[in-house]
Amino acid sequence: MVKQERAARTRETLIRSAAEVFGREGFSKASLTAISSLAGVSSGALHFHFESKAALADVVEAEALARLLALTRTEPAAGASRVQLLVDVTHRLADELRGDVVLRTGFALGGEPSRPARIGLREHWRCWVEKELERAEAQGELRTEVRAQDVVATVVAATVGLERLGVREAMWLSAATVSRVWRLLLPAVAPAALLADLQAGGTSPP
Amino acid sequence: MVKQERAARTRETLIRSAAEVFGREGFSKASLTAISSLAGVSSGALHFHFESKAALADVVEAEALARLLALTRTEPAAGASRVQLLVDVTHRLADELRGDVVLRTGFALGGEPSRPARIGLREHWRCWVEKELERAEAQGELRTEVRAQDVVATVVAATVGLERLGVREAMWLSAATVSRVWRLLLPAVAPAALLADLQAGGTSPP
Repeated sequence: MVKQERAARTRETLIRSAAEVFGREGFSKASLTAISSLAGVSSGALHFHFESKAALADVVEAEALARLLALTRTEPAAGASRVQLLVDVTHRLADELRGDVVLRTGFALGGEPSRPARIGLREHWRCWVEKELERAEAQGELRTEVRAQDVVATVVAATVGLERLGVREAMWLSAATVSRVWRLLLPAVAPAALLADLQAGGTSPP
Repeated sequence: MVKQERAARTRETLIRSAAEVFGREGFSKASLTAISSLAGVSSGALHFHFESKAALADVVEAEALARLLALTRTEPAAGASRVQLLVDVTHRLADELRGDVVLRTGFALGGEPSRPARIGLREHWRCWVEKELERAEAQGELRTEVRAQDVVATVVAATVGLERLGVREAMWLSAATVSRVWRLLLPAVAPAALLADLQAGGTSPP
């Protein structure tokens, strides 16, 4: 049992170290030696857990997807605002992207030209935003003259942009920057009657 | 003279081939052999023009920056709308990103973790958007309750997002998608009195 726990901890350390090295050097340039040395384990131990660099990158991406799914799985109380949920989850995503190297690198790996395209984090994010905005529209939370697909395109583009810009300048993932975007978007998205209740800076989960 | 022209043409072919290979495989994985073979020249000819892969990537980025500068150098007629100029240049940028592999790869190279950070295309784009929105504000083209910095953050994030998403799905760089974003943003950015004259789909240069 102790042995299993130790193995699980080593595996987790390796995933985090791989995310750091992939994030810093890119997938192609990253070496397994750099990863095992950052993790403080032998290369034999690395190979016990992961058979190749590609397998390790797949696991980083899967782990990041699990964290993104945890964020988007939030269910608001019945009747609560779907637009506010979108604002809140965007804030939480930006916050976790700043602090969580596995999530950050998971997004970056999806854009690496040297890896095959697959259903990645961006694709999941796009689908979730789309679904939430359809629900918002069904609840009457979008201005009648606004097309939901325009909001989807803008929110997806802006959040992917913040994620990319944040790789080199964390300021783009700050609560202040995310609030700037929503402060501009909310009056364009939501009917005037709902605006007073919407917080561009996000609300805390209950 | 004929010899010089031929050399200039070879150099240009090498830059375009390098942009294609860097774009497809990423900077680290791209090989000089793949580049010279795509260009249809010997590796000796490649080395005559460029001393290393890093030098070639620098030239691709510089060439892409020159193209971006040509786009942002557009000066509208005196008194013409700065907001409309921003919309128009965004459309032209998206259109050129779809068609021009050098411009597309120039943006991508700026985000490659394995290359040193420098003043790249994104930084130039951010500065230009900021300057144009300051001019728009000075001309009374922003709604009084809107903060120019909120518009800067949103427009920069959204355009960088479209650029990134467009690498794998050209649809994100289509006129339809760019128009979606501006259709949502314009009413949030410009005073009601100006809205009728602004075209989210862009206007043709005179």
